[in-house]
Amino acid sequence: MTDPLSTTLSALADPTRRAILARLAQGEATVNELAEPFEISLPAVSRHLKVLERAGLISRGRAAQWRPCRIETDSLKAVDDWLSVYRRFWEQSFDRMAAYLEEIKEGKTKEGKGDERAKKNR
Amino acid sequence: MTDPLSTTLSALADPTRRAILARLAQGEATVNELAEPFEISLPAVSRHLKVLERAGLISRGRAAQWRPCRIETDSLKAVDDWLSVYRRFWEQSFDRMAAYLEEIKEGKTKEGKGDERAKKNR
Repeated sequence: MTDPLSTTLSALADPTRRAILARLAQGEATVNELAEPFEISLPAVSRHLKVLERAGLISRGRAAQWRPCRIETDSLKAVDDWLSVYRRFWEQSFDRMAAYLEEIKEGKTKEGKGDERAKKNR
Repeated sequence: MTDPLSTTLSALADPTRRAILARLAQGEATVNELAEPFEISLPAVSRHLKVLERAGLISRGRAAQWRPCRIETDSLKAVDDWLSVYRRFWEQSFDRMAAYLEEIKEGKTKEGKGDERAKKNR
């Protein structure tokens, strides 16, 4: 049995499915509406929707013919939570850059002070 | 050809590969060190490492026998960037909760004020 996070990541590992999610982030849509921008058949879109639904990334309305799709973000939040452990890597490197810029600034200030001292000692 | 983000997400869609990444987040490790906590063979670990390397999630040292693995976080940051569009969903719901709590607090304050007015009108 596949764990939920692996199922989610696997469902997201497809550009068409990510594009469908991006569309649904704007609001509910029917299968026909979702198929429109893609050069793929309705059955192919339906297959993608089934993968997204199994991964809990979308849900579908009850009305048999209409069945609008909507985004469900709990699984995406689970990916976000998993990523949070690693976020320190790019945030740290951002912090390091900020610290470096601060150092340059301070260096300039010290240089400035040095100049002033030099003036006094003249 | 698979796009880079799909390759990354697909590589992450496996609990053993995510566990390997979690280990490497602590520091470099050799294949033997990585294999230790898992009940899988060295060749199986090597296969997982190849998938992670192809996805740009790890890199490996040059020394032929040693070849320590290290985490590379640019691809993870790309996932983080992709997720940022969706983050508003759970941050919004958090904001809504905060607003609701604020409303309750204000409601209480108003009630309090109402009581005071009632007192004055007595």
